[in-house]
Amino acid sequence: MVITPHHFLENMFYPESIAIVGASTSDSESGWVRRLINFGYKGKIYPVNPKATEISGLPSYPSVRDIPDPVEYAIFNIPARFTLQAMNDCIAKGVKYVHCFAAGFSETGLDEARVMEQQLLALAKASGIRLLGPNCMGLYCPSAGLTFNQDFPKESGQVAFVSQSGAEAMRLVFLGQDVGIYFSKVASYGNAADLDAPDFLEYLADDEETKAVACYIEGVKNGPRFVSAVKKCLTKKPVVILKAGLTESGSGAAASHTASLTGAKPVWDAFFKQTGAIPANTMDEVADILQALIRVKPTRGRRVAVAGRGGGIGVVAADICERAGLKVPAFSKETRDRLLEVIPEAGASIRNPVETTAGLGGASLFYRRGLPIVDADTETDIILIHIAVDVYGTHTPDLAQKVGEAADALAEKAPSLRKPLAAALFTGGHPDTILAVHAAREKLIKAGVAVFSGVESATRALNKIIDYYSRVE
Amino acid sequence: MVITPHHFLENMFYPESIAIVGASTSDSESGWVRRLINFGYKGKIYPVNPKATEISGLPSYPSVRDIPDPVEYAIFNIPARFTLQAMNDCIAKGVKYVHCFAAGFSETGLDEARVMEQQLLALAKASGIRLLGPNCMGLYCPSAGLTFNQDFPKESGQVAFVSQSGAEAMRLVFLGQDVGIYFSKVASYGNAADLDAPDFLEYLADDEETKAVACYIEGVKNGPRFVSAVKKCLTKKPVVILKAGLTESGSGAAASHTASLTGAKPVWDAFFKQTGAIPANTMDEVADILQALIRVKPTRGRRVAVAGRGGGIGVVAADICERAGLKVPAFSKETRDRLLEVIPEAGASIRNPVETTAGLGGASLFYRRGLPIVDADTETDIILIHIAVDVYGTHTPDLAQKVGEAADALAEKAPSLRKPLAAALFTGGHPDTILAVHAAREKLIKAGVAVFSGVESATRALNKIIDYYSRVE
Repeated sequence: MVITPHHFLENMFYPESIAIVGASTSDSESGWVRRLINFGYKGKIYPVNPKATEISGLPSYPSVRDIPDPVEYAIFNIPARFTLQAMNDCIAKGVKYVHCFAAGFSETGLDEARVMEQQLLALAKASGIRLLGPNCMGLYCPSAGLTFNQDFPKESGQVAFVSQSGAEAMRLVFLGQDVGIYFSKVASYGNAADLDAPDFLEYLADDEETKAVACYIEGVKNGPRFVSAVKKCLTKKPVVILKAGLTESGSGAAASHTASLTGAKPVWDAFFKQTGAIPANTMDEVADILQALIRVKPTRGRRVAVAGRGGGIGVVAADICERAGLKVPAFSKETRDRLLEVIPEAGASIRNPVETTAGLGGASLFYRRGLPIVDADTETDIILIHIAVDVYGTHTPDLAQKVGEAADALAEKAPSLRKPLAAALFTGGHPDTILAVHAAREKLIKAGVAVFSGVESATRALNKIIDYYSRVE
Repeated sequence: MVITPHHFLENMFYPESIAIVGASTSDSESGWVRRLINFGYKGKIYPVNPKATEISGLPSYPSVRDIPDPVEYAIFNIPARFTLQAMNDCIAKGVKYVHCFAAGFSETGLDEARVMEQQLLALAKASGIRLLGPNCMGLYCPSAGLTFNQDFPKESGQVAFVSQSGAEAMRLVFLGQDVGIYFSKVASYGNAADLDAPDFLEYLADDEETKAVACYIEGVKNGPRFVSAVKKCLTKKPVVILKAGLTESGSGAAASHTASLTGAKPVWDAFFKQTGAIPANTMDEVADILQALIRVKPTRGRRVAVAGRGGGIGVVAADICERAGLKVPAFSKETRDRLLEVIPEAGASIRNPVETTAGLGGASLFYRRGLPIVDADTETDIILIHIAVDVYGTHTPDLAQKVGEAADALAEKAPSLRKPLAAALFTGGHPDTILAVHAAREKLIKAGVAVFSGVESATRALNKIIDYYSRVE
């Protein structure tokens, strides 16, 4: 656990004690108390529920005021109408942080709900309590044993995510887990009555555990502060931002979701240009960009060497590269001459894309003997491997094993390559081939290779990180 | 089996007898002889191999000339240098169609190989033999028991595919199979020395088994003939074309793959505008468009009603819709009032997108009670359901069952809806959630619901078919 002193959010991510106001008596795995216990939270947990004396094996209290020991952090898992009373109890107790998980505030668009949010905020402000939410999932910090989802990985990682949406926060953690990208800290901050994206960004800028930051934003309340926080972060690490609501349709949806004023597209275009933050349009793209940032060697070169089975797939891959802002030029004469020696099949292209031949055995052979040649080519900067599993006859009992062997060959060679490397593994939706791809992907990821679900997603992410590295120095 | 008389290709897709020149003695499942037997080809199969007297239980002949009975169709599974002799044997025997599977001809870029292809073609032309290839996978026609891949489905379907690339042909068949899209006929035609895309398109225009045609093209030899064949097809059925090599990178790759002159992008832009063919950029997009053509009710309306779990996911979905050329306007006042009655959760949006609440049970409830309300809305034309499986806590043992129950509810309601319907089911790459999605998808597909792997792919396909229906009226 890396401690970054001095920032007021540090203790919120690593609290010494947590009160669960409205703790469920069911001891369900998805309840706050049982979840924190199971996730390995090491601090004190105080269930609060007037209807119970014990919850999940811990003493339960009628109110936060009744807890005998100090409470640093409180989570409000109660209907909105009870939150003002709970906040007063927290003030009386000297609680420092409140996460209002409850919804039913300004996001409803109802006047009385908006007023209630203002009252909750006023109480917090007057007493020095920092308020997270309302209407949000809260914090995930595996190194502290903190989580809002019982299935999140306990493994800590290098990426932080600041999200106005709880569902998108869940999606990114699982999208990340599935490609071996883990998180240092995730904050779902909802209505942002008090704590807002800039607070988290400023904190994360100096968080040594965090090597890259992602952000899901619908609206920004204080533009200059947001810009300044993003810029501060960017002096230390890359920031990927999914700005939702940039279209008329999305803007209307956002107004109804988090009551956000999403802002005009030209303003945000200027923001990205001015700050150097990396823009993304979907959560899948965010996950892809994060993977590229973490696993692909920094590069400003846009010339891609493409290798894989299937001449037509190579042609389409070349088109996709160029549409994504990259180029697939011909290899040097020397490279082509050398490739001819290791590509046994007549008719297989060696111009770039180069076609690996003779089944998955041919792919393995190419990774061992062909990749070093491509790596030495002077006309290209990045290597993109595509493996279309369906092209290999597929659905045979030994497919997973053969794909795995090819992955082993690529994983073995990858660390010795000078050029940045990315792989695209894809298949139709047949469960056998999907599981084969999954197993192969795990091997590659373990070897540090960035693995994408298609040439389109790979090139889109590569283009974004090349843009980023071209700007940062 | 639907017989379309008079077109010369009919007998090639339904040949009465096939000689395999260069039949493998191994009786392997991936060999031509065993494959045709296993796939249920009902005509006569004549293995030709001078080194064997019996192959896969059938008598083998030293040459096509030695076969005692008439031979309609011959497949050359021999090195290129032996093909001229084999062609002479076929001429002597009175063979009508030759599929030259062998590669090593003009696609190599070598003069001697190009000359050999010309000689092969000249022999065929002089004798009236129609030549498929060289350098291609050949024909797949499940209703005739014809296939070039032992794992292709035996089930016949409504889509035909004409492909210059064999690997892309394999990809599309498997991509299709996985979403329940099956094929009437597939032709991988490679170098197109003789039979070319227009031959197949003209044939398929009148093929009653075929309701939609897809095409993978790198280069076109006779532009006017191609345009005329596409137009003929389009008077009867939709034609989706993946034109590869439209970028500089792709064009260079295509030259090396099939020696194709890919043509300038403005020319192809004009072609699509003039003919009304549906353009696609990747094979995944082709599969998506085919599914939309077959399962989504024809519509020219671009106003999408979006429903699913996760407010932020809804906002991003609305942005994606608009970027794809669609709109997500607010529901009518009446619709919103009625939705309020079936959406129990405070803070859930009912503007459009509408958020289904309370877990997968809430999703099922919405499909039963909310969908009819959305279906009656006057401000929207199409319904798009998104199910982000990861948002539902995920990875629990009963996830697959719960997702399946939600799919059942949607499948049950879908047939009663007036509006066109599409569903996007997606998840991170965790095998449990993937298999849950796979099972749910099968239920929906069985009920005739179009199921896509994401909002982006769904809206891209919807936009393309709306364009198409807007043109054809």
